[in-house]
Amino acid sequence: MFKRTHHCNELTTANVGQTVTLCGWVNASRNLGGLIFIDLRDREGITQINIDPAARPELAAKAATLHEEYVISVTGIVRARPENMVNAKRATGTIEVEGTDLEILNAAKPMPYNLEDPTASEDIKLKYRYLDMRRCGLLANLRYRHKMTKVIRDVLDENGFIEVDTPILTKSTPEGARDYLVPSRIKPGLFFALPQSPQQYKQLLMVGGVERYFQIARCFRDEDLRADRQPEFTQVDLEMSFVDQDDIIAVSEQMIARTVEAVTGKKVQLPIERMTWDTAMNKYGSDKPDLRFDMAIHDMGAIFQNTAFQAFQKVLADGGVIRAINAKGQAASSSRKVIDGWTEEAKLFGAHGLLWLKVDPDGKLSGSAAKFFNEDETAAMKAELAAEPGDLLLMVADKWSVACAAMGRVRLCVADKAGLIDPSVLRFEWIVDFPMFEWSEEDNKWNAVHHPFTAPNDEGWALLESDPGKVYAKAYDIILNGCELGGGSIRIHQPERQAQIFKALGISDEQARLRFGHLLDAFSFGAPPHGGIALGLDRFVMLLCSAKSIREVIAFPKTAKSFDLLMDAPDTVDKKQLDELHIAIVNDTEDK
Amino acid sequence: MFKRTHHCNELTTANVGQTVTLCGWVNASRNLGGLIFIDLRDREGITQINIDPAARPELAAKAATLHEEYVISVTGIVRARPENMVNAKRATGTIEVEGTDLEILNAAKPMPYNLEDPTASEDIKLKYRYLDMRRCGLLANLRYRHKMTKVIRDVLDENGFIEVDTPILTKSTPEGARDYLVPSRIKPGLFFALPQSPQQYKQLLMVGGVERYFQIARCFRDEDLRADRQPEFTQVDLEMSFVDQDDIIAVSEQMIARTVEAVTGKKVQLPIERMTWDTAMNKYGSDKPDLRFDMAIHDMGAIFQNTAFQAFQKVLADGGVIRAINAKGQAASSSRKVIDGWTEEAKLFGAHGLLWLKVDPDGKLSGSAAKFFNEDETAAMKAELAAEPGDLLLMVADKWSVACAAMGRVRLCVADKAGLIDPSVLRFEWIVDFPMFEWSEEDNKWNAVHHPFTAPNDEGWALLESDPGKVYAKAYDIILNGCELGGGSIRIHQPERQAQIFKALGISDEQARLRFGHLLDAFSFGAPPHGGIALGLDRFVMLLCSAKSIREVIAFPKTAKSFDLLMDAPDTVDKKQLDELHIAIVNDTEDK
Repeated sequence: MFKRTHHCNELTTANVGQTVTLCGWVNASRNLGGLIFIDLRDREGITQINIDPAARPELAAKAATLHEEYVISVTGIVRARPENMVNAKRATGTIEVEGTDLEILNAAKPMPYNLEDPTASEDIKLKYRYLDMRRCGLLANLRYRHKMTKVIRDVLDENGFIEVDTPILTKSTPEGARDYLVPSRIKPGLFFALPQSPQQYKQLLMVGGVERYFQIARCFRDEDLRADRQPEFTQVDLEMSFVDQDDIIAVSEQMIARTVEAVTGKKVQLPIERMTWDTAMNKYGSDKPDLRFDMAIHDMGAIFQNTAFQAFQKVLADGGVIRAINAKGQAASSSRKVIDGWTEEAKLFGAHGLLWLKVDPDGKLSGSAAKFFNEDETAAMKAELAAEPGDLLLMVADKWSVACAAMGRVRLCVADKAGLIDPSVLRFEWIVDFPMFEWSEEDNKWNAVHHPFTAPNDEGWALLESDPGKVYAKAYDIILNGCELGGGSIRIHQPERQAQIFKALGISDEQARLRFGHLLDAFSFGAPPHGGIALGLDRFVMLLCSAKSIREVIAFPKTAKSFDLLMDAPDTVDKKQLDELHIAIVNDTEDK
Repeated sequence: MFKRTHHCNELTTANVGQTVTLCGWVNASRNLGGLIFIDLRDREGITQINIDPAARPELAAKAATLHEEYVISVTGIVRARPENMVNAKRATGTIEVEGTDLEILNAAKPMPYNLEDPTASEDIKLKYRYLDMRRCGLLANLRYRHKMTKVIRDVLDENGFIEVDTPILTKSTPEGARDYLVPSRIKPGLFFALPQSPQQYKQLLMVGGVERYFQIARCFRDEDLRADRQPEFTQVDLEMSFVDQDDIIAVSEQMIARTVEAVTGKKVQLPIERMTWDTAMNKYGSDKPDLRFDMAIHDMGAIFQNTAFQAFQKVLADGGVIRAINAKGQAASSSRKVIDGWTEEAKLFGAHGLLWLKVDPDGKLSGSAAKFFNEDETAAMKAELAAEPGDLLLMVADKWSVACAAMGRVRLCVADKAGLIDPSVLRFEWIVDFPMFEWSEEDNKWNAVHHPFTAPNDEGWALLESDPGKVYAKAYDIILNGCELGGGSIRIHQPERQAQIFKALGISDEQARLRFGHLLDAFSFGAPPHGGIALGLDRFVMLLCSAKSIREVIAFPKTAKSFDLLMDAPDTVDKKQLDELHIAIVNDTEDK
């Protein structure tokens, strides 16, 4: 094999006259009678080779046997292209290589699908993932991913963090999502589980005195996959001792800013703004608000305190709220059909309907509910929303959680339609002061919003029994462009404090022992104050690469049905393997 | 919580007079009547605190409640120690901190075992792994491990490698070791398997054009664990395209040398020497020779060509060999009992016995077989082995493989007894030119020594059918101090070449299709020439840390029975979980 001297993106007019060797794939070849042109592609770029049949008939004969995706090594002399042949779009567009020797390293059968075809089915591209890698942006995404993890590791290393691998074969913890199980052969009837996160291990590392831990950790969840989930995913996981929320946020910000700058060149303004969960919900109807645009939600309750409109009366009397946004300048372009679509979106979140009002050129309101409001209400409404002719006002009256969620959704729909979202902007935000508990109608008790090891804020301890709904947690999420990038919390490190929380959650001592015994033991032997955060790496890469799906930033993803089309996994196994594991397949259909 | 200003290794006389805050664990506390001394420990070191009850009675009363491993935060003023109180062994031994304030961050129950006790049982230390981390060298080892992976990543990144994560949920490949299986819930009756290595994925990445891939990859093997194996282990895995063996060796050496220097300060002389497999076996009786000492094995066959000694006659007539070492100066100190021990070792490798001869002060030979050899033979033997008075000659006559292995083992035993091994030396060696095939008596066919994708060397293709035993592979192992650190090979990248190898291995087209179909497909679409290597990270860290077991360099290892004593895994799971997976536990005892 000839030894490569350059990559296919490297040669310029500075190399003219040099003899070089390039290796790669035939991206395209054209026989223009007088000359054979080969576009040779490697990981870095494309270089044009030309072979002159008149001057080198044997070489030309060999070149004529090449097909798409043949693997070759070419030696030749770098020549400047005539000015009218310069390809400004290509790094090597000012030169070409006059081929003097050619080695065919491997042939290629005709491709199973057109690699350039953007409409090729997702399934065929997953089956031939290695071919998809050659042409699409996938390889570029994998490089971004590599660069991001490199920078993350560099920053955390500089900050004294130690990367520690925690086990993949661990224990099932039935709360949370469904575990993947691994039967034990040596202990028949017992099972390992794949970790949903290294949460317990990282807290144990803090008890062990590691003080600053991180891991880029593989995690697993056996869920019925929603739109863009994978059964195995990766999180940037860190934990620190002797710190408070500000310390964890500061380190995370440094890591995020350095990563963003390394792969996009963009500066993240630090510190990243913080917004309380209450504000996020009230103003943007979401705990992961997209703040690339404003269009805040307004509370209209005061305006309609004494309304004659019965629907509003009833909502307010029941403790509900009335919330509205001003879809600036959207009156004319929002047809009935468009508004009906938004209404359906609002209903998905439980809203009974979506009221809309257009501000006519004369300043009067028209639309579904205009007639129900008196002059004062109309004026106050317009003032509150700074409504001007051409604006579209959208309103939901419902219980607080429904009104927030529905208006939050409608806000996004309007922004999308109105083109308010600049895709080049990266807008980060911390959401802080999450509620500690949420009331479960189903369980008829308070459940933890995060996990039961999350610490309440200092004032919260006094309210644990009297008013759990008013207890806020030392928990924080980092949001990027309306996506939750990650979150974390300060943990409870004192066993007696942990017992108080279990009690508030209705977890008995016996249950706590059974479910978290080893962790409670550990906390009793001198656990330091600690806290941490986990960021979803796949999503972070996806957002920075502007990819449409996390599948585009994972080398070998599974389908929405958790199937690996390339390897054909999962697959059948030998009966002998099952026998060794002391398990059998239960065939439901036979049972019935 | 008071904010830490310094770590417990940082303060020196330069800080005298400063007010500082330290956080950590009570390593020890002593009440010497007049003064209370606390040794405060954090991740970085220990600092002595003193509290004067006369000056600060309330603080002293609080300090008196402290016990071992309490977590505290102390504020105080740095004072120089009187000269006679300086502790030269401690980084902070020239100062102490006069405590002015103290916060108890967490209490600790009495420790479940004496953390300083070197005889504490392995089981209790694994159960309380987080406590074991606090005192022993475990944390130091985890830091070394972090540093090593950091340097490895830096070196590979600088060399254009892209770190790509490959799936953990993949497909069972019944050849090789036993797989861990993961039942699929969505596809009842089908199973994922955890990867034994990313071998197939990394080759697919080469087909995909990644050109330089690496991963610090978690791998899994469900084996009955030998001495120092773990069911999950980590390998530094890399693969390159358009390269030959020398390129892979060069990158590996750079990575190894940089890593070694970063954690030990030692320079590795590059290039690392290479030895053929034939030489390693013949001269050192092992494919992973320990070259920290020489004591090469000698071939005595020529000397005994016409011997009258019937045992030797027979071995030579049967195509066997006679191999010997000179245990320099070991005659006097090697008792009959010692030699009997070595004989038992030789027998473990199939040898019928171990002949020994002592060179007496007068130059004559004495010992078990001296009488069988004539004067010429004795003289030739002494000359070949450069034998001098006081030397002990050890000999095995047997078939080649047995004689090599037995003498190789005896060589190590002698070196150990004679103290020839300098534990501070790091001796690397490449073993190259491995045989491609080994004859299996059991299967009555040739099997692959590495895996069936390994390329033979260029001359080997012609011998595939006529003399497979003479075919050498483009395979290489890297050895450190007699341990196999890793190995790799150049792969076959052309489908027609792969078919030739399958044929030589007696693998039919149908079998090949069934077992490696997706890989063979991939190779037919333009696979570049490629090869790679994998290093066992756990073992590498262990050797550089001078740890005795890989358990000492893994944060949360499993026992020899694959049990996690900390988490108590594997464990029982709910029947509901099994039902969802459509599997049932087969209870053997009930069946019988």
